[in-house]
Amino acid sequence: MDARALSEFGRRDWETDTDHEPVRFAMIGLGWWTREEAIPATEESDRCETTVVVSGDRDKAADVAEASANAETAVTYEEFHDGAATDEYDAVYIATPNAKHVEFVESAAEFGKAVLCEKPMEATPERARRIVEACEGEVPLMVAYRMHTEPAVRRARELVAEGAIGDPMLVHGSMSQDLLEIFSNPDQWRLDPDLSGPGASVMDLGIYPLNTARFVLDADPVEVSALARSDGEAFSDVPDEVATFEVRFDDGTLAACSASQNANRSSHLKVVGTDGEVSIEPAFFDRQSRQFELEVNGTRAAVEPEQVDQMLEEFDYFAHQVRTDRDLYADGRHGLVDIETLHAIYESAEQGSVVEL
Amino acid sequence: MDARALSEFGRRDWETDTDHEPVRFAMIGLGWWTREEAIPATEESDRCETTVVVSGDRDKAADVAEASANAETAVTYEEFHDGAATDEYDAVYIATPNAKHVEFVESAAEFGKAVLCEKPMEATPERARRIVEACEGEVPLMVAYRMHTEPAVRRARELVAEGAIGDPMLVHGSMSQDLLEIFSNPDQWRLDPDLSGPGASVMDLGIYPLNTARFVLDADPVEVSALARSDGEAFSDVPDEVATFEVRFDDGTLAACSASQNANRSSHLKVVGTDGEVSIEPAFFDRQSRQFELEVNGTRAAVEPEQVDQMLEEFDYFAHQVRTDRDLYADGRHGLVDIETLHAIYESAEQGSVVEL
Repeated sequence: MDARALSEFGRRDWETDTDHEPVRFAMIGLGWWTREEAIPATEESDRCETTVVVSGDRDKAADVAEASANAETAVTYEEFHDGAATDEYDAVYIATPNAKHVEFVESAAEFGKAVLCEKPMEATPERARRIVEACEGEVPLMVAYRMHTEPAVRRARELVAEGAIGDPMLVHGSMSQDLLEIFSNPDQWRLDPDLSGPGASVMDLGIYPLNTARFVLDADPVEVSALARSDGEAFSDVPDEVATFEVRFDDGTLAACSASQNANRSSHLKVVGTDGEVSIEPAFFDRQSRQFELEVNGTRAAVEPEQVDQMLEEFDYFAHQVRTDRDLYADGRHGLVDIETLHAIYESAEQGSVVEL
Repeated sequence: MDARALSEFGRRDWETDTDHEPVRFAMIGLGWWTREEAIPATEESDRCETTVVVSGDRDKAADVAEASANAETAVTYEEFHDGAATDEYDAVYIATPNAKHVEFVESAAEFGKAVLCEKPMEATPERARRIVEACEGEVPLMVAYRMHTEPAVRRARELVAEGAIGDPMLVHGSMSQDLLEIFSNPDQWRLDPDLSGPGASVMDLGIYPLNTARFVLDADPVEVSALARSDGEAFSDVPDEVATFEVRFDDGTLAACSASQNANRSSHLKVVGTDGEVSIEPAFFDRQSRQFELEVNGTRAAVEPEQVDQMLEEFDYFAHQVRTDRDLYADGRHGLVDIETLHAIYESAEQGSVVEL
C-alpha cells in the first residue's frame, strides 16, 4: 500500500497560486442548486464570493441576498441585462434552465465578465455556438463540469493517461435518479423541451457518463447509437424517461451508457483496458462516499477517498485560473462537442440508426 | 440483517428429490473446459457421472478416459455418430466449437439420449433451429447457461420478480477477457467465423450479459443496436475484438452491454429499477468471489455469498430434472432466441442501424 498516494489522492494538482483577490460572482438563476450548493461553496471559499444575486423574481432575489453572507445586491434578469451592478461582480455563474443560458452569457461578455456556465451549456448546438462566439477572444468561459475537478475522476484520468490499465477498450457509465421524487411538481423545466432541449434524461444526466468518459479517456465521440423510451405521463413531452446510448470515441474506445429520470438514484463509471480497469461508484452525484477501484494485472485496490465539496473545488479552480490568467477547462468548444453529441443521441434514438459526428 | 436469508442464499430452490440413479454422461469435445470443469463436476456429483468421453482425436479421448474417475470408454466422433457405446450413457454434454453442435445433438436425439448443449447453442439461427427440431418431443434438451443455476443470479431474479426494486428500467452488463493470454495460439476456433459464428466477443462473452439480463428480468429482446471494432491482427477475421450493444426488452427495460476478447478480465451486472437496484460483480466468470448488492429505497446491503461450483450446480440441476421428468430450463427455444439476438447484434453493428427481432 502506498500511504503517500492515499494522502495525496485529493490534491488540487491544478493549484499553484494560493493567494489572490477573491473573484466576486453574480449568481444567475436562483434554483435549489444555486442556493444550496453554489452560493454556500462561494461562502466556504477564500477564492470566491457571491456579491450579486440575479433572478426573474425580484422578491426571490431579495430573499436570497438577505440569507447570504456577502450578497448585498439583488437584481432582476432585466436589470442584469441592462448592466445593473456591473462594478460589484467580476464573473457570472449561470444556472438557469438550459435554454436560458445564452442571453446571460452574451450580456456578461458584453460587460467583460468571466463566465462559469452550467452544463449542458445550452439546449441546442446553434445556441451553444452563440456562447462560444460571444466569449472567444473576449472573456474567460468555463462550462461547469464538476467531475473535472473531482479528485476521483482526476486520478482516473491520470491513471489512464499513464497507461496503468493499458489501452482503454470499454467504458460503462450510468446515471439515474427519481426526478419526480426530488421535485414533486412535474411541471418543471427538465421535462419541457422548450427549456431543456430535446429531452430530459440524456440532457440532464446522460451528459455525466458521456462527458466524464471524454475527460477520463481524453478522447472525443465520433459516432453514437441510442435507444429511448417514455411511458410515464410526466414524461409525455420528452422521449427519454429512460435511455441507453453507445459512443465510439476517436481513440477506438466504445462506451455503453444509460440515463433515467425515473429510476433509483444510481451512478457508476468503469473503464476497462487491456491490462486493467478503473471504476468509480457511485460516480456522479455530489455529497456521496465514492468507491474508487483500480485493477492492474489481476491485483485490485479499493480506495474510499475523503469527500470533497465538488462545487467548492469547481469554483476555486475557476477563480484560480481566472486570477492567474490561465486557460479554463472545459472551454466552450469542449462544451459544444457535448451538445452536438447529445443531439446526435436523440437523433439516433428517433431514427433508429447510428449518427456520426 | 436477516441471518436466515444469508444461510439460505445458496439454496437449490429447484431441488425436490435427493436420491436417484446417477445420469451417465458422454462428454463430447474434450477441450480444457470439459477436462477441467465439466468432468470434475460430474466426479464431484452424486447425481452424475462421466462414463464415456468423445473426441475427434482417439489418443486424446483415451488419455482423458485414463485420467478420469469413471470414464471407461473412449470413442471418436465418428464412432459416436455410428452409435458406439450407447448402452453406457444416458445423456450427452456437448462442448465442441459452436458450429459443431448440431450433428452431435441430432445423433444423441436419434439414440434417445438427453442433451446438455453448451451455449451459444450453435453458430447460426438455422443450425440452432435444427437442434430444436431434433429434440422437441423426442429427448430432453437443455442449453448450458451456468448463470441459471448460480445462486447469486437466482436471488437477483427472485428479487426482481417480487418487485423488490420496483419496475426494472435499466440493465448494465459487461464481460471481457484476454483471450490470447488464456490461449496463446491465435489459431483457435473462437476467432474463426466458420466455427464460432459471426464473431468472437459477442458470441462467446456478450451472450452472458444478454442472457443473464433475460433471465433476471424474465423478458425477451425486441430490438438491438450495436457498435463493434477489430484492430488487432488476431481479430482480423471477426468484427468484434470489442463491442457494445443495447437491447430493448419486451417489458420496456433497456440494457447497455459490452464484450471484449482483448481486455482485462472483468464482468458486472446491474439492474436498476424505480425503487432500487441489484448488482453482481464480478458476475460471469466461475471460481470468483462475487459481491451481491441490493439497494432498496436508499438502503444498501452487500453480500459475499459462499462460492458454488457452477458446473456442479448445472449438472446436478440437469440430472435432477431429467430423473424427475421435469422440464429443463433453458430449453432449445430459449437458446434459439439468443442465437437470433446475437446475429441481430452483428447485423446492427455491420449496417449501423437498430435491428428488430
